[in-house]
Amino acid sequence: MSSEFGISLRVSVFGQSHGAAVGVVVDGLPAGEAVDLEALQAFLDRRRPGRGPLSTPRKEADAPEFLSGLEGGVTCGAPLCAVIRNADQHSADYTGLTDTPRPGHADYTAAVKWAGQADMRGGGHFSGRLTAPLCIAGGIAKQILARRGIHVGAHLAAAGGIADAPFPLHPTPELFAAVAAKPFPVLDDGAGARMQSAILEARQQQDSVGGIVECAAVGLPAGLGDPMFGGVENRLASAIFGIPAVKGVEFGAGFAAAGLRGSENNDPFAVEDGRVITEGNHAGGILGGITTGMPVTLRAAFKPTPSIARPQRTVSLSRMEETELIIRGRHDPCIAHRAVPVVEAVTATVLLDLLLEGNHGTF
Amino acid sequence: MSSEFGISLRVSVFGQSHGAAVGVVVDGLPAGEAVDLEALQAFLDRRRPGRGPLSTPRKEADAPEFLSGLEGGVTCGAPLCAVIRNADQHSADYTGLTDTPRPGHADYTAAVKWAGQADMRGGGHFSGRLTAPLCIAGGIAKQILARRGIHVGAHLAAAGGIADAPFPLHPTPELFAAVAAKPFPVLDDGAGARMQSAILEARQQQDSVGGIVECAAVGLPAGLGDPMFGGVENRLASAIFGIPAVKGVEFGAGFAAAGLRGSENNDPFAVEDGRVITEGNHAGGILGGITTGMPVTLRAAFKPTPSIARPQRTVSLSRMEETELIIRGRHDPCIAHRAVPVVEAVTATVLLDLLLEGNHGTF
Amino acid sequence: MSSEFGISLRVSVFGQSHGAAVGVVVDGLPAGEAVDLEALQAFLDRRRPGRGPLSTPRKEADAPEFLSGLEGGVTCGAPLCAVIRNADQHSADYTGLTDTPRPGHADYTAAVKWAGQADMRGGGHFSGRLTAPLCIAGGIAKQILARRGIHVGAHLAAAGGIADAPFPLHPTPELFAAVAAKPFPVLDDGAGARMQSAILEARQQQDSVGGIVECAAVGLPAGLGDPMFGGVENRLASAIFGIPAVKGVEFGAGFAAAGLRGSENNDPFAVEDGRVITEGNHAGGILGGITTGMPVTLRAAFKPTPSIARPQRTVSLSRMEETELIIRGRHDPCIAHRAVPVVEAVTATVLLDLLLEGNHGTF
Amino acid sequence: MSSEFGISLRVSVFGQSHGAAVGVVVDGLPAGEAVDLEALQAFLDRRRPGRGPLSTPRKEADAPEFLSGLEGGVTCGAPLCAVIRNADQHSADYTGLTDTPRPGHADYTAAVKWAGQADMRGGGHFSGRLTAPLCIAGGIAKQILARRGIHVGAHLAAAGGIADAPFPLHPTPELFAAVAAKPFPVLDDGAGARMQSAILEARQQQDSVGGIVECAAVGLPAGLGDPMFGGVENRLASAIFGIPAVKGVEFGAGFAAAGLRGSENNDPFAVEDGRVITEGNHAGGILGGITTGMPVTLRAAFKPTPSIARPQRTVSLSRMEETELIIRGRHDPCIAHRAVPVVEAVTATVLLDLLLEGNHGTF
Repeated sequence: MSSEFGISLRVSVFGQSHGAAVGVVVDGLPAGEAVDLEALQAFLDRRRPGRGPLSTPRKEADAPEFLSGLEGGVTCGAPLCAVIRNADQHSADYTGLTDTPRPGHADYTAAVKWAGQADMRGGGHFSGRLTAPLCIAGGIAKQILARRGIHVGAHLAAAGGIADAPFPLHPTPELFAAVAAKPFPVLDDGAGARMQSAILEARQQQDSVGGIVECAAVGLPAGLGDPMFGGVENRLASAIFGIPAVKGVEFGAGFAAAGLRGSENNDPFAVEDGRVITEGNHAGGILGGITTGMPVTLRAAFKPTPSIARPQRTVSLSRMEETELIIRGRHDPCIAHRAVPVVEAVTATVLLDLLLEGNHGTF
Repeated sequence: MSSEFGISLRVSVFGQSHGAAVGVVVDGLPAGEAVDLEALQAFLDRRRPGRGPLSTPRKEADAPEFLSGLEGGVTCGAPLCAVIRNADQHSADYTGLTDTPRPGHADYTAAVKWAGQADMRGGGHFSGRLTAPLCIAGGIAKQILARRGIHVGAHLAAAGGIADAPFPLHPTPELFAAVAAKPFPVLDDGAGARMQSAILEARQQQDSVGGIVECAAVGLPAGLGDPMFGGVENRLASAIFGIPAVKGVEFGAGFAAAGLRGSENNDPFAVEDGRVITEGNHAGGILGGITTGMPVTLRAAFKPTPSIARPQRTVSLSRMEETELIIRGRHDPCIAHRAVPVVEAVTATVLLDLLLEGNHGTF
Repeated sequence: MSSEFGISLRVSVFGQSHGAAVGVVVDGLPAGEAVDLEALQAFLDRRRPGRGPLSTPRKEADAPEFLSGLEGGVTCGAPLCAVIRNADQHSADYTGLTDTPRPGHADYTAAVKWAGQADMRGGGHFSGRLTAPLCIAGGIAKQILARRGIHVGAHLAAAGGIADAPFPLHPTPELFAAVAAKPFPVLDDGAGARMQSAILEARQQQDSVGGIVECAAVGLPAGLGDPMFGGVENRLASAIFGIPAVKGVEFGAGFAAAGLRGSENNDPFAVEDGRVITEGNHAGGILGGITTGMPVTLRAAFKPTPSIARPQRTVSLSRMEETELIIRGRHDPCIAHRAVPVVEAVTATVLLDLLLEGNHGTF
Repeated sequence: MSSEFGISLRVSVFGQSHGAAVGVVVDGLPAGEAVDLEALQAFLDRRRPGRGPLSTPRKEADAPEFLSGLEGGVTCGAPLCAVIRNADQHSADYTGLTDTPRPGHADYTAAVKWAGQADMRGGGHFSGRLTAPLCIAGGIAKQILARRGIHVGAHLAAAGGIADAPFPLHPTPELFAAVAAKPFPVLDDGAGARMQSAILEARQQQDSVGGIVECAAVGLPAGLGDPMFGGVENRLASAIFGIPAVKGVEFGAGFAAAGLRGSENNDPFAVEDGRVITEGNHAGGILGGITTGMPVTLRAAFKPTPSIARPQRTVSLSRMEETELIIRGRHDPCIAHRAVPVVEAVTATVLLDLLLEGNHGTF
């Protein structure tokens, strides 16, 4: 059950960062949906490591090959499988990591769980490399949703302790497109410049920083989701915690709501253009697990990249004694900005899954 | 899919707050487990509305009747069903709510989803009343876990903007028991007194406050959970977002990790008493979705009770025009302190589910 | 996972034959569906043990109490829970069975699985008594389906080696009603009389007989179900094997198809009243896992009642030696005729589940 | 949900018979299991179309490429993905099938479900070609089971109306290997010769025949599976009905049990070598959904190949009028003998899934 999510739309991810390929099977896509491969590639490129000082210089083409599910660029109703070959492998860099687990990584827990059999070179199945196939699934979901008037966008809400401006109450598809087109995906470019400085500074200090991604979806109908354990929050959170390094997920006002009064946090209902809306959106577009028709908003917290160049204390599992570890290879001093399209992708996939189920109440 | 969670251990909740009963079916409990009914009742009493000014005066006996699954007080391997009759119903208080949805409640989303057919009196299936059967399941899970050396505890980490002390790095079962025995479940009674003042003040102002519950589980083996979408975080978050009013869930350092450097957030590995431990626990006992053997720690944010006595703006769904609503009946000015055992219950249930799956790696 | 089935419509059964009650939770019923309780009771009465010589004289009122999910006799969208109290318990009759497992029963496998902790009195969770709550779920599903022009019926196709006439190519709702109204549910009353003689003869010889139930559903739209593992056959078979004593399930021509030529077994397509039909129905209304719009037909094989009065050879589990067992109490010499409404119930529930999912292709 | 099965061990199949590739993702394999690729290839070759007159002359190398999950020929705990490229495509043969659905195929139901968008060339996702990736998963499962003393074998129990001898009460791994080594997988070669004659005769008459596959698994522990809907029969049947052309599944005596007396069908318990056994095995190794420790036995009925060369009546969907269809290309006059390893593969996969769950009762 580890590598899959979804109910009507099932996404199954496979591959290791230093194996032959990574890929995804998506089962349940509606048939007859054209996939704009150029737009998909542009979406995938948003999570690629860049050439600038902010990212690892590893070059990944990330060009998916479609093995099934597309006929002439259109979904055919059968499961879609896409793979990305791993072209640029440096597994030699990772030699010897097995015995001395990297702090903040899954090396130790994998060693316990799989008794030393797990592929630990480069992170194995825990690698951020697996977010590439997630973006294939999500990039297709985004296109299908957009065709139905539903748009999903995200930005880097914080990094290195510096906050971006928040999304407005009603973010537009144009705003989403504008942020997506930026080399550094923030709303306030001044804040973005300060974040980049903080990231560079961390890198110079052989360190790394964390960040927060804010994501929103507009155009959703009211009535999606189910109460209690089948709610929109449950399903989004469950999937988003599958993105490596996520340690917190909140909706609407989230943790800040815990410090508000009911009179502040309740969103009054109003009528606008013949539709029921809420005047604020502390609820993040979700009440009782079900969409209100207002934008669904969420924030995901990413911990700082655990791979840092400075020496770290760890243990030798074979000798059961404490030792020091220096991680070689080049690593992103921050992954949160590259995670922006990944959060969009997973959010879009879950929302399409919810949409495909239909609204049982109107049956 | 709305009222169930779990994989090996399936929990299915039913009932409406103003119907005949609420209850739970728990399928997958190991056979031969004695259930201490007195201890279970004491656990259920912790979420009961009290008689003091902090809570609604509604008296609920919350005494479960077991319809199946127990033989002579011992689980028999068949699904356990327990029901709690609803003795104290005031559905008259809720008359007329259907047309004017309460801000912050699921009235509107339920009306959209079920086209007016949903039971909206008193919140229907969205009611906090359904946390009682969750506590039956979780109270039993806590007893089964304790028998295996695993203990789950929680406290009110914040309310009305006032913070309690955090759990120590290694909370003990005794600490859990001490907090559970308090009338107001905090670590720092001074902070607790200030929280209670803030709650009373909100009540006097016909308002309400939110809060945060911190929960920890100690004694877990390393190796539970799966990478990516089957991780401990995914499964806990998915279930905890099923508790009414939860708007955020974080593990370990959570959102605070986003503001840390990697050198601060990484927990160095060390050897203690022949076992691998981490020196801090920013990871909340989970790396790559899998338990490290350190305490699993999480925090859940509860929004302020949406039912407040002051007039609120809403709409008439039938006339599609804006109007004002006054919610009658008596409501908790804060539900977060009553949610403390509920978070324990859901956490314990998910952890037992994970434990029952076994560790596939050692197969 | 043992006591549940369904995807959009989840059915969870609980209770032991000699415990306090049996019952069912049905999650996912559409809201606003009136439940005709009188018709439901009439349906439940069809599986009741009768007073004649064919059945056990145990009298079960089988009158369900609804704990949740119904408001004024109408489904409200919340999970429905119904329980039937066990009034007539003779657990004394079953004393001592634990050590000497009854041949053909689950006593031995339950003893192995639950290490002696399972409730073995009267069959525990394996009991035919649990078909009563299945009939509550299915009886409600039948009413909801009938409102959409879909009718499910069944008859006893064989018992004691004597065959009834098969359903015609297009069974009508009137035919279903006529069979349901008979005290012995066959199409050919002459064959029914011979079956009853065979059952009586087996009883007189302290023995029992098996039988086959044929079930059909008419009025289904084409396009329900999914290819491969999500097909109508997969889902129906998976659920029907949950009825105690079922050892085989086939659709359309079933095992007989294995002896036919392709030219015989293929159903030619034709046009009738502007609709595509097939001229025969060897496919049982299902091609590639998906409904054709023709009647869905299936047959389920029931083994002879394993509880027989004559001495049987078994072992003492405690002494690990062979011994003889005499089963006391009164038992049905045939359960297949009482299983007719149960097969209808499970079939209707699965079909409603499929219908509630909608046809993703037309999304 | 259409292309997946399994709980702890998830199998997800993808690909179209005339697309780029077919493949499988297997999630949940235990880590550290060596995969004998030569033995796997030999297993895959058993389902390959042969060169003789009994099969289609299409040559498929069926050589899997492993994209993930294997490290040095050993499972690493991450999802395994294997693909088989489609080398020999004749999609031109299938032109024009879309408008005139082939009797006995899923063309019509796919057209209804996906409104003409489904890939109908060569059967699309309904193709027998997808049994190749099922055999990759199952071939690996068979190796893992064999390492634990569990062996799965099958033979062609009937074809063209001619019956093979049944498996003995206790089939041995040697017997399984002997049948697997035969070019025509029967126990009684005389019966096999007559079956082959019947198949050839059908082919000469532009027709096809059906058949029955009997499968058995030996060495299973008692106690696997769950009562009611999680039973071994439910899960095996649900998966086996996912093999194209299966119309019936039975366990042990199956449909024949419906014609037996209880005194005949009940398997007496006995003690042999200090273990509890049953003297016969009418139960097919399963009582109450749970394994007894005796061989699990099942039979699956395959309908005759629907693609036959003689003209068949069908309809033009665009003109809604009746017409005649001639299916070009070369097709197997019988697929049941090629289905023998497929039934083994699916059975082995389900049994490994059950085994990986562990026996909760001994927790």
